[in-house]
Amino acid sequence: MLNTLIVGASGYTGAELASYVNRHPHMNITALTVSAQSSDAGKLLSSLHPQLKGIVDLPLQPMSDISEFTQGVDVVFLATAHEVSHDLAPQFLAAGCVVFDLSGAYRVNNAEFYTQYYGFTHQHPDLLDSAVYGLAEWQADKIKQADLIAVPGCYPTAAQLALKPLIDNGLLDLTQWPVINATSGVSGAGRKASLSNSFCEVSLQPYGVFTHRHQPEIASHLGADIIFTPHLGNFPRGILETITCRLQDGVTQQQIAAVYQQAYGDKPLVRLYEKGMPALKNVVGLPFCDIGFAVQGQHLIVVATEDNLLKGAAAQAMQCANIRFGFTETQALI
Amino acid sequence: MLNTLIVGASGYTGAELASYVNRHPHMNITALTVSAQSSDAGKLLSSLHPQLKGIVDLPLQPMSDISEFTQGVDVVFLATAHEVSHDLAPQFLAAGCVVFDLSGAYRVNNAEFYTQYYGFTHQHPDLLDSAVYGLAEWQADKIKQADLIAVPGCYPTAAQLALKPLIDNGLLDLTQWPVINATSGVSGAGRKASLSNSFCEVSLQPYGVFTHRHQPEIASHLGADIIFTPHLGNFPRGILETITCRLQDGVTQQQIAAVYQQAYGDKPLVRLYEKGMPALKNVVGLPFCDIGFAVQGQHLIVVATEDNLLKGAAAQAMQCANIRFGFTETQALI
Amino acid sequence: MLNTLIVGASGYTGAELASYVNRHPHMNITALTVSAQSSDAGKLLSSLHPQLKGIVDLPLQPMSDISEFTQGVDVVFLATAHEVSHDLAPQFLAAGCVVFDLSGAYRVNNAEFYTQYYGFTHQHPDLLDSAVYGLAEWQADKIKQADLIAVPGCYPTAAQLALKPLIDNGLLDLTQWPVINATSGVSGAGRKASLSNSFCEVSLQPYGVFTHRHQPEIASHLGADIIFTPHLGNFPRGILETITCRLQDGVTQQQIAAVYQQAYGDKPLVRLYEKGMPALKNVVGLPFCDIGFAVQGQHLIVVATEDNLLKGAAAQAMQCANIRFGFTETQALI
Amino acid sequence: MLNTLIVGASGYTGAELASYVNRHPHMNITALTVSAQSSDAGKLLSSLHPQLKGIVDLPLQPMSDISEFTQGVDVVFLATAHEVSHDLAPQFLAAGCVVFDLSGAYRVNNAEFYTQYYGFTHQHPDLLDSAVYGLAEWQADKIKQADLIAVPGCYPTAAQLALKPLIDNGLLDLTQWPVINATSGVSGAGRKASLSNSFCEVSLQPYGVFTHRHQPEIASHLGADIIFTPHLGNFPRGILETITCRLQDGVTQQQIAAVYQQAYGDKPLVRLYEKGMPALKNVVGLPFCDIGFAVQGQHLIVVATEDNLLKGAAAQAMQCANIRFGFTETQALI
Repeated sequence: MLNTLIVGASGYTGAELASYVNRHPHMNITALTVSAQSSDAGKLLSSLHPQLKGIVDLPLQPMSDISEFTQGVDVVFLATAHEVSHDLAPQFLAAGCVVFDLSGAYRVNNAEFYTQYYGFTHQHPDLLDSAVYGLAEWQADKIKQADLIAVPGCYPTAAQLALKPLIDNGLLDLTQWPVINATSGVSGAGRKASLSNSFCEVSLQPYGVFTHRHQPEIASHLGADIIFTPHLGNFPRGILETITCRLQDGVTQQQIAAVYQQAYGDKPLVRLYEKGMPALKNVVGLPFCDIGFAVQGQHLIVVATEDNLLKGAAAQAMQCANIRFGFTETQALI
Repeated sequence: MLNTLIVGASGYTGAELASYVNRHPHMNITALTVSAQSSDAGKLLSSLHPQLKGIVDLPLQPMSDISEFTQGVDVVFLATAHEVSHDLAPQFLAAGCVVFDLSGAYRVNNAEFYTQYYGFTHQHPDLLDSAVYGLAEWQADKIKQADLIAVPGCYPTAAQLALKPLIDNGLLDLTQWPVINATSGVSGAGRKASLSNSFCEVSLQPYGVFTHRHQPEIASHLGADIIFTPHLGNFPRGILETITCRLQDGVTQQQIAAVYQQAYGDKPLVRLYEKGMPALKNVVGLPFCDIGFAVQGQHLIVVATEDNLLKGAAAQAMQCANIRFGFTETQALI
Repeated sequence: MLNTLIVGASGYTGAELASYVNRHPHMNITALTVSAQSSDAGKLLSSLHPQLKGIVDLPLQPMSDISEFTQGVDVVFLATAHEVSHDLAPQFLAAGCVVFDLSGAYRVNNAEFYTQYYGFTHQHPDLLDSAVYGLAEWQADKIKQADLIAVPGCYPTAAQLALKPLIDNGLLDLTQWPVINATSGVSGAGRKASLSNSFCEVSLQPYGVFTHRHQPEIASHLGADIIFTPHLGNFPRGILETITCRLQDGVTQQQIAAVYQQAYGDKPLVRLYEKGMPALKNVVGLPFCDIGFAVQGQHLIVVATEDNLLKGAAAQAMQCANIRFGFTETQALI
Repeated sequence: MLNTLIVGASGYTGAELASYVNRHPHMNITALTVSAQSSDAGKLLSSLHPQLKGIVDLPLQPMSDISEFTQGVDVVFLATAHEVSHDLAPQFLAAGCVVFDLSGAYRVNNAEFYTQYYGFTHQHPDLLDSAVYGLAEWQADKIKQADLIAVPGCYPTAAQLALKPLIDNGLLDLTQWPVINATSGVSGAGRKASLSNSFCEVSLQPYGVFTHRHQPEIASHLGADIIFTPHLGNFPRGILETITCRLQDGVTQQQIAAVYQQAYGDKPLVRLYEKGMPALKNVVGLPFCDIGFAVQGQHLIVVATEDNLLKGAAAQAMQCANIRFGFTETQALI
């Protein structure tokens, strides 16, 4: 049994992580923590997320010094803000824990990136070097060896799973940048009071056009320029991305199907659609990324869906943990 | 043309009032104001409520002293917090304005009520005496003479429109308290950042059970005890109330239909259902209260619906203004 | 391993049953069937319910004669129309199967009931006698011996779980009928094309007032008259019931808490709220019934929530199966 | 007063048209008709659309021969299926009516188009010649002279309003086809029973990828190739289109703002966003098309929103009628 600590457990992702660890046959929750300043400190996780009542009734403990919580801990999930993860990851690594960070703090091996897009100066370029980007279907070999896994963001997971097989196999004419039109549920903004996320204010609309920091995350890992336009959707959970690409001359539907099959045919958490297109509802509450596509002439449209809190966060983190520790990849997830 | 001031115009009700006054052929907007401390001060109403872009593009002016805004003003709508209305109403009356207050500050002619349910000591018992409760279908004669009209709350409007004809005509056995089960859209909580109204947190649930201050407002004006159980619904606007009553022995469906017909047959903003039951969607965005009912033995179920922001607030305020100034009752509303 | 047949597997409840059986360590799916006339015959379950893609990819087989499907089958779940269950249950019993019927065909031991409320003449009064009503928390001893378990309807499960401890312990003054105000998600109407369930037509509204057949099911099993008013809600899944009762003189909050504790303190699928009230979202996708209550004077308001497709259908059926075969009560459910 | 006939009045668009005509000071409803075979024949419009109760309580009359309805009629709105409009338009023209057709039957002056995309052989190429495409902001001069106005489809209206100023002014590099990613509310599918539009089945998903017939309608009228990907959204009304284009070298944000200003600065039903982006909720129930945009390098993203039933159907039809008959363009609409 791996002793597991969930840091920043009060949010939507933290609750999902707690649920997964709780049902994992080889992991158990050592503690759930929140910032010492949090007004949620001392409350039961299940009082914030009553769906977990009777399932995970542990308290959210205030953490000011990690040393109070590292004793005997094997695994740490950081469901914390970027700056907090930036600071905590090296401390937990020093304490001998394997760290799965769900923030953006270690996703891009380029310290400048953080200055530009995250507004802080990265202090741990060595860890940027050693951190493994936890896009699980593509990084299994590295994940198995890693102590710091930077779990990808919600939008980047779907975008990369959709585009990487096409780009790696040279099927796209990248002089025309792929257009990623993405719509996310409101939970992507986190659990907090905010006017823009209040029930009466939410409706389908674009935001962060040309300025969202998931754009460089995607571009950096794909090694290709892309246009990324996120939208807020009027639903709590899920992401749907519609990606329009230009194919190289002569690329056929069969070739595309073949590269997807090669990439994901044996991957349990990516579901390929041979016909029809994914719909959002079919991934909500589930750990999958669903992918479908259509071709006309040199135009290709790929549609990818996932639950932003699951394959886009907690499920992928657990998938990485399963890979890291040699468990069945879908343990606790399906 | 009546010069009209809307105080507290930044909220959902304020926006609806502005829209109504704007389209009224005999009224025009003198100014829209917000508290001098409001972060919305100086913004355009249509920047907060973009549906009004191109319709009402006036600024929200900070008001610290009413005297800057009363010059030539005939009508004031107070879409302000209870305590603010409590303080402002006498000032605007002194300035010669006719005041329509949409808060609870002058709804119940009982100063104790405010201590108990609103948490402040009422300073203007004389105005409680002279204020007219603006339940428009029932108070037209008084409204015509009034200078201070206390527009009823959203839940009480539907509840009283449904119950008053039955009670006034002695059709109910009131030893068994009518059970008012009500569900309101989230806009009832106002335009503000709050975790409980955030998109991912909202779902159908009761709140304020046995403690909501609309319970004594309803009971006081009906002169009857009632049980009132409000719920938050997962929709932005609208109220549906399902009211279960016990009839006096021998009361028939025909008698009930007759008293409703007598009360509302000539009232343009109450729509009676001869068969079938009201559904929420049919009143959203409209100034009506819809009423349907069913009888079995001595049990009567009445269902009333309204848009909480309209017949439950802005539309009823405008209806009162139309009555007060001798305009067609539905002017600007339909 | 128990070989398990799911009859009528194409609907929402059928899909949930398939998911539960699939993950049950001691059960496996022998076949999924639909009516031989169904246009879904031959399709994969996961083509109708793509959330199950990669999880349950079995075909929906047309069944005209049960004998083609009973070979070696231990357990049958009937997720079929009332009349179909009425006809099939005795056939499967004769074939030696244990039958869990999710329709209304065997829920009330009174043949007249079916003539009056279901519109058909019941042909198997002997089975009405021997069938056990599968309200799992209350019928475990009988379920263990039964071969035909009539799983309760969605509304009746929540209503009875809320009221039965109060009534059995004599806490209610039943001369005033409990008022059950219930709101259900649209999935309660089944998976089919219908104008009234189309997306643009759905909004909160009452239906079947005084005429819904769950009223006599509830009253019959509670042994008490009740008023039951169902509503359609604008959400796909879940039921919330707000129940207003009159207490016997002198009954206290503590007594009520005690009888609930006694009834459900050791029951894993009923979650009691010591403070606060249940909200719909906390049971959606989960097998629980959540219960909270508030008291004022002689008035009691109980709120019960459940997922209509789970504790109100598939999860309770599986709970009954777990009880019947001696498995952990929550096996496959949590 | 213009006598006005609404044909096919039972649907969502028909109801909106009836509401507009009803409130128009210079038009009145002569009759509302449905197909003689319709099960809605004889019902009140307000029984199908209860929001109109007390507003438009006219019956839906079965029409088998138009001559029963043309006496004294000046204006006809056809809210009928494409094939029905195809057949009826010449009949109403022959009877001396001015015809506003909301179907696709006369939108593209190319008989082949109908064979290919609509599946019928067009019998009236002369009318295709004389029909005016009712994109109101662009065709006012022609509309004033026309007797047959083909009101554009919902998706094409927003797409063309967004793209036409850019293309006409040569700002786009059209060798890279504009990518139109559009999401529509479910009412776009019409008022009918269908499994795919049932409440529990609807969720965000693409449909008709590369095959939707609005693609050639848009391309034909813009004179440019485009990629059009429609999606179904989980909301009843509204369309949001996110359009990604490539600019000609050196085109600036200011130039784009200028061409939009030139095109729509004096147009009351197109609202330009100087900053920020349109959100769906701000056009629902309103006759506007809202347009915002952002530029980065050679990439331009334009976002356009409208209510699919209003600016995308009924409001634009009425706007065309206002133009045709010399009324204020927004009469009855704002």
